[in-house]
Amino acid sequence: MIKNIFYLALFFFISTAIYAQNNDSLIFRKIYSETLEHGKAYDWLRELTSEIGGRLSGSPEAAKAVEWAKKKMIEAGADTVYLQEVLVPHWVRGAKESSFIIEANGNKTLVPVCALGNSVSTPKEGITAQVIEINDFSQLAKLGTEKIKGKIVFYNHPFKEYLQNTFEAYGEAVGYRWAGPSEAARYGAIATVCRSMTNASDNYPHTGAMHYNDSLPKVPCCAISTNAADLLSRILHANNTTQFFFRQECHFLDSVLSYNVIGEIKGSEFPDEYITVGGHLDSWDLGKGASDDGTGVVQAIEMLRTLKAANIKPKRTIRTVAFMNEENGNCGGKKYAAIAKEKNEKHIAAIESDAGGFLPIGFGLNMPPEKKTAVRKWAPLFLPYFVYNFTSEGDGSDISPLEKLNVPCMGLEVNPQRYFDYHHTAIDTFDKVNKRELLLGAAAMTAMAYMLALYGL
Amino acid sequence: MIKNIFYLALFFFISTAIYAQNNDSLIFRKIYSETLEHGKAYDWLRELTSEIGGRLSGSPEAAKAVEWAKKKMIEAGADTVYLQEVLVPHWVRGAKESSFIIEANGNKTLVPVCALGNSVSTPKEGITAQVIEINDFSQLAKLGTEKIKGKIVFYNHPFKEYLQNTFEAYGEAVGYRWAGPSEAARYGAIATVCRSMTNASDNYPHTGAMHYNDSLPKVPCCAISTNAADLLSRILHANNTTQFFFRQECHFLDSVLSYNVIGEIKGSEFPDEYITVGGHLDSWDLGKGASDDGTGVVQAIEMLRTLKAANIKPKRTIRTVAFMNEENGNCGGKKYAAIAKEKNEKHIAAIESDAGGFLPIGFGLNMPPEKKTAVRKWAPLFLPYFVYNFTSEGDGSDISPLEKLNVPCMGLEVNPQRYFDYHHTAIDTFDKVNKRELLLGAAAMTAMAYMLALYGL
Repeated sequence: MIKNIFYLALFFFISTAIYAQNNDSLIFRKIYSETLEHGKAYDWLRELTSEIGGRLSGSPEAAKAVEWAKKKMIEAGADTVYLQEVLVPHWVRGAKESSFIIEANGNKTLVPVCALGNSVSTPKEGITAQVIEINDFSQLAKLGTEKIKGKIVFYNHPFKEYLQNTFEAYGEAVGYRWAGPSEAARYGAIATVCRSMTNASDNYPHTGAMHYNDSLPKVPCCAISTNAADLLSRILHANNTTQFFFRQECHFLDSVLSYNVIGEIKGSEFPDEYITVGGHLDSWDLGKGASDDGTGVVQAIEMLRTLKAANIKPKRTIRTVAFMNEENGNCGGKKYAAIAKEKNEKHIAAIESDAGGFLPIGFGLNMPPEKKTAVRKWAPLFLPYFVYNFTSEGDGSDISPLEKLNVPCMGLEVNPQRYFDYHHTAIDTFDKVNKRELLLGAAAMTAMAYMLALYGL
Repeated sequence: MIKNIFYLALFFFISTAIYAQNNDSLIFRKIYSETLEHGKAYDWLRELTSEIGGRLSGSPEAAKAVEWAKKKMIEAGADTVYLQEVLVPHWVRGAKESSFIIEANGNKTLVPVCALGNSVSTPKEGITAQVIEINDFSQLAKLGTEKIKGKIVFYNHPFKEYLQNTFEAYGEAVGYRWAGPSEAARYGAIATVCRSMTNASDNYPHTGAMHYNDSLPKVPCCAISTNAADLLSRILHANNTTQFFFRQECHFLDSVLSYNVIGEIKGSEFPDEYITVGGHLDSWDLGKGASDDGTGVVQAIEMLRTLKAANIKPKRTIRTVAFMNEENGNCGGKKYAAIAKEKNEKHIAAIESDAGGFLPIGFGLNMPPEKKTAVRKWAPLFLPYFVYNFTSEGDGSDISPLEKLNVPCMGLEVNPQRYFDYHHTAIDTFDKVNKRELLLGAAAMTAMAYMLALYGL
């Protein structure tokens, strides 16, 4: 008898589970159809990139983007749209940078260059000095003050091509951009030049944030393209007295009051429990901030539109957040988490899209093992839509302060092969984004947010 | 005692299996590293598309491509390279086509147009007639001869946007291109205009093969871009007496002797058992045949290079085949299978790449269930490299005649979102291909060929 009850219960449990999965799969179909057939994310991205363009924190473009995002969230049908104050740093590039290689025989070769974000300027006349090529930090330490002092350190650490995931290659190399200037200053270098962070062989320098160690001299730092880095390396190998010149006028202005833009659809059963879905609204200044991270922003706004248009009512409150200042300070992400903590908000989970609007293939999961297990049970629902990978980690900078508050965080994982071709360059533009890939990413986030709102985590 | 032996055997089996998987995973790593670090497929594709360009069967460019492919297979290190004679049809487009919409008030709007492959020409002065829009074949039958006779049928059947896999949308729509002209002729239509086969909204007409039913009149047929189709539809809805004009001079010349190009690496243990890996060398004439199917050809040649460079010796013979005439006759595929049958060759399996050099995500399996099960056991080896899907069907036109001889066939499945943006158009060019995605596809095929050569199927 007990056995029979057990089977009955099991049967009930299984049939309920199957029903739930079937019903969920119908909602998934509805979400994907609505997004693929009527999605506006692509048109919005065209607007954001062409009418506003690059939008570095503190810039007039960033301010325009705040107004724009607010308008789009209203247009998408959010129940509530509001701004959250964020004080952001205001670094400016100043006049266009210039640089050239000066060979021992006096020959000068112009190379495309850009200041790294947060860098100090050079003196007005620029910096000219002998260059020393460094392939990794251990080599730098070995050479020491004796060989480094008074020179320009040239970090030439290429992406490891064999790493199939370019984000791993980025992670392995980006320390030379981020910490390289101070590390070189430790041994008396007067400036640094960094090989661009990309697999591509081309002529575009990639900017990106660097960070000074306050206990060391702040030396100006720039990036040159991979082609220029290869050229400089060849010239240095032929003659190690080769010099490098560069000039840049970048500097900080006073901090600026800016905003995170937030749009909500109120939960029907648990309005005080939140799912955050976002990307960052600011971008670097060289390009148009299309793949980094206009795509994440328009996808998160598309989620609002799709849910409203398909008349899907989430049980918990779903919030789209267009974060400000991911690129050089993460003030928006920090502020959002601080307010959440201050208000004692109950955050179920957060999702970020900040790897470009490419084919979505999975979700990186930063959360305790039992919550990962819960999310992975939903994997079969995503499988027909190319989203198969739930084994990676990695979420997004903007939501990482929430993670520190123990909120389960996810990053939309996409085909990573093209992102670093454009990342932080003048060619981070609209034409690199494929409409359907962008929309599939929006639908994947919408479907995940729906599940989180329905079942919690 | 029997039980103990059983456990011992089980232990032996499991540990052997683990050893095999570990060893195989090391070979996979070797293949992927060699291909990603030193692969030449991308440079070869640049050569093929820029130095030769579009290469329709029978054209001088196709003849040049045969010589080029032979040279590259030798350069890649194949043990044997040879040509296999194939008699191919020689359809030519003739002078550039022209077309315009003629509104009831006499206004003429030029629209970009192209003849469908295999179509007959129009009379020299072109064809001008009233247009009738048809959305599907059932509508055509319903209107019948009374409404269709003497008119130009305009097939306006858009891709179904909600289908996440664009190849399904293509399969659902392509009948209007392939069989539409004869179906319209059945009811007395004098010509057909087809909406291009793509999700993209743009101004590029897409050509592609059509097929006449010999028992019906052969009417000239062309394709217009999706933007032009939308325009024509709008104009027709405003006034159904709208006319369409087009002129084309396409026709068949005498058949031409051409070739499949074959390069082999001899198997170390079973040299008389074959794994065929290929793509097709011919292309349509409008673009450069980059994604269709220069990518498949250079990936299959890259496989030879990678195996040789990494010093991996396959147990069975691995053959790269650059097939001729996939686009308008499939004579190369048919000939290859006919020769295989005639020589009584033992073919273990065949793999084709003909969906563009985009991120590889799986293999379509056309084979009996027990062989699918065998292949799926290898799936964990592919998973770190984005290749997760072994549940789809679909191989490739060139190897489909082998499939009829019961050879297990596979198609490299790739991210399908971008292929039909370029397919059969003037923008099927080199710049649409990403180097690393192309190389990942080559590595996936190489790894699969290695497994088939090692274990059979």
